Amino acid sequence: MKLYNLSLSGNCYKVRLFAALAGIDVDIVDVDFLGGEHKRPPLIDLNPWGEIPVLVDGDVVLRDSQAILVYLARKYAGESWLPGDPAGMAEVVQWLSTAANEVQNGPASARLIDKFGYSLDKADTLRRAARILPLLEGRLARHPWLALGRPSIADCAVFPYVALAPEGGVDLTPYPAILAWIERVKGLPGFLSMPGV
Amino acid sequence: MKLYNLSLSGNCYKVRLFAALAGIDVDIVDVDFLGGEHKRPPLIDLNPWGEIPVLVDGDVVLRDSQAILVYLARKYAGESWLPGDPAGMAEVVQWLSTAANEVQNGPASARLIDKFGYSLDKADTLRRAARILPLLEGRLARHPWLALGRPSIADCAVFPYVALAPEGGVDLTPYPAILAWIERVKGLPGFLSMPGV
Repeated sequence: MKLYNLSLSGNCYKVRLFAALAGIDVDIVDVDFLGGEHKRPPLIDLNPWGEIPVLVDGDVVLRDSQAILVYLARKYAGESWLPGDPAGMAEVVQWLSTAANEVQNGPASARLIDKFGYSLDKADTLRRAARILPLLEGRLARHPWLALGRPSIADCAVFPYVALAPEGGVDLTPYPAILAWIERVKGLPGFLSMPGV
Repeated sequence: MKLYNLSLSGNCYKVRLFAALAGIDVDIVDVDFLGGEHKRPPLIDLNPWGEIPVLVDGDVVLRDSQAILVYLARKYAGESWLPGDPAGMAEVVQWLSTAANEVQNGPASARLIDKFGYSLDKADTLRRAARILPLLEGRLARHPWLALGRPSIADCAVFPYVALAPEGGVDLTPYPAILAWIERVKGLPGFLSMPGV
């Protein structure tokens, strides 16, 4: 099983983090991102979107970090990180949407500007961060984990770009429950870090 | 089972459409959106995000249209609209992320500006639409449905705001495969429309 990877990508880190926490063996294949390797064959044929991560497991080829988490959790991690019952699964999927939209377009995009020089609207990313972080804070002030009362792929999907938010100029000190959750995630057995976390 | 609903919301329509296609009985409760009913108790207690749709099914309370589709499909629609095997499930989830991010922040947001006067960056929404629509076109030029080779909740999640794109000034005529897919969705048994579709 191969993960086409960039070490500084929070979306790739979602997958590396979950694989480490769940003890899933994945071969990491680093992509020459600055050289545009993901925009050319053979990678563009695996993912026409020209993005990473991409997971290849036999015949299965997946783009989108959230979908990769779902696949790995259901295929290799039993019921613990993404349960099969409809209510539990949907509770987790709520946070996968949050990771794909509000976190990606808020703190993750602010970091793309500050750290990698992306041409995006910084004020817009900060407005979006200022909306989602209080919602996360409200949740985490009352619950130790985002869903299910235990660690799940919800946490793996949301954690990277929240923990990396300061690299986009987003201050987390107003959010003590988020900071405490970050420490709880870091304390999980098998936790794997990345630069900036 | 209650769906807190706004008839003009494409996110609410995702759920109404899927329930109609799968023959799932849902009580529609229209919310006074302009009056801000979703921002006050009791609705804000069901969804602290102050958004609709919200689904309530006994003890289960869900925000996020994608998560609601997952719940309804797995609870009430067997294997047909969201399969339980990891590869099939993840293939569908890829498109749920697309609906939550690229479609929401592209054509859906362009429509929010034009139709409802939202204060968003129109150029940004059009740029995002101009990226995602060719990717959808490329997929649909080679496959009749977004995932699995058959209708799934992937189509239900992506269809509404793509079909409504012209209401945001996004022209679909350059995308014949998307237009053909829209007609295929409209031809599904039980199809339910909404204003603008």
